[in-house]
Amino acid sequence: MSTIAALVGEGFEDVEYTEPAAAFRKAGHTVVTVGLRAGHEIKGKHATPLEIQRAVSNAGVDEFDALFIPGGYSPDHLRVDPRAVEFVRQYVESGKLVFAICHAPQLLINARVLKGRRIAGWPSLAVDIENAGAEYIDAEVVEDGNIVSSRKPEDIPTFVAASLRRLG
Amino acid sequence: MSTIAALVGEGFEDVEYTEPAAAFRKAGHTVVTVGLRAGHEIKGKHATPLEIQRAVSNAGVDEFDALFIPGGYSPDHLRVDPRAVEFVRQYVESGKLVFAICHAPQLLINARVLKGRRIAGWPSLAVDIENAGAEYIDAEVVEDGNIVSSRKPEDIPTFVAASLRRLG
Repeated sequence: MSTIAALVGEGFEDVEYTEPAAAFRKAGHTVVTVGLRAGHEIKGKHATPLEIQRAVSNAGVDEFDALFIPGGYSPDHLRVDPRAVEFVRQYVESGKLVFAICHAPQLLINARVLKGRRIAGWPSLAVDIENAGAEYIDAEVVEDGNIVSSRKPEDIPTFVAASLRRLG
Repeated sequence: MSTIAALVGEGFEDVEYTEPAAAFRKAGHTVVTVGLRAGHEIKGKHATPLEIQRAVSNAGVDEFDALFIPGGYSPDHLRVDPRAVEFVRQYVESGKLVFAICHAPQLLINARVLKGRRIAGWPSLAVDIENAGAEYIDAEVVEDGNIVSSRKPEDIPTFVAASLRRLG
């Protein structure tokens, strides 16, 4: 069973955290919320409360088997913090699994790890993704190396299925 | 006196519309709200209601003397609509004045008009702006050709002063 770091901040797209997290736990994995301040309660776009268990500033890549980044407004809030961006960069470069949905590519763009990759994401990001040197793919799920990505809430079942398969 | 198109959508940063719009009107200019659906009421991030007067699909660049783009979540919502992106593209290329604050550069990125420009904006966009071929400037206000840009709500007084000066 794996331990998954869920990197979340204010305004996350509620179901993009709650549904995959529930599915990962049901399959026997452990999900740990990682954010800017440990012990702080954040809220989703639709007001779902969520407690941050670990501060990204002292979370180590080696403590987790996979990184899960929900979308909504959360990735844009998180990417102004250099520690969150550095955590994502180290994670992608470690080769460990990264599950990214919706606006999650905003963090990957700031971590400068998208060059030459194929990735799905929220359609508004298509030009940002291309400008970052990646190929934007309009598909329910895209798997490119260690990155599993999807576009939006409707893709969650496919996104979760692919993520669980990769966790093995 | 000038007629200014304010391009706004759901989740605009309330004060980034209300304060410049009030200042423009006080100076004798006309502000017309342009959005996805005429007659539709949208809401700011902090719930300020705003009625859209003109649909971007039939708004002509020649009807307005300047384009004003408030920030918040609005530019990311608007840029999935090709008509909004095309309106912005035509506007910037017309050489008429463009006032852009906070997340407004997201629309300029999708309109592919930033190459070689110097621009301010919300700090989270710095990498997206650079990837679009522009130079991100961390300043209260930046004037580059017909584009006047600022970073955030705190910059509003400087942003409004520069915009009013350029309107003449």
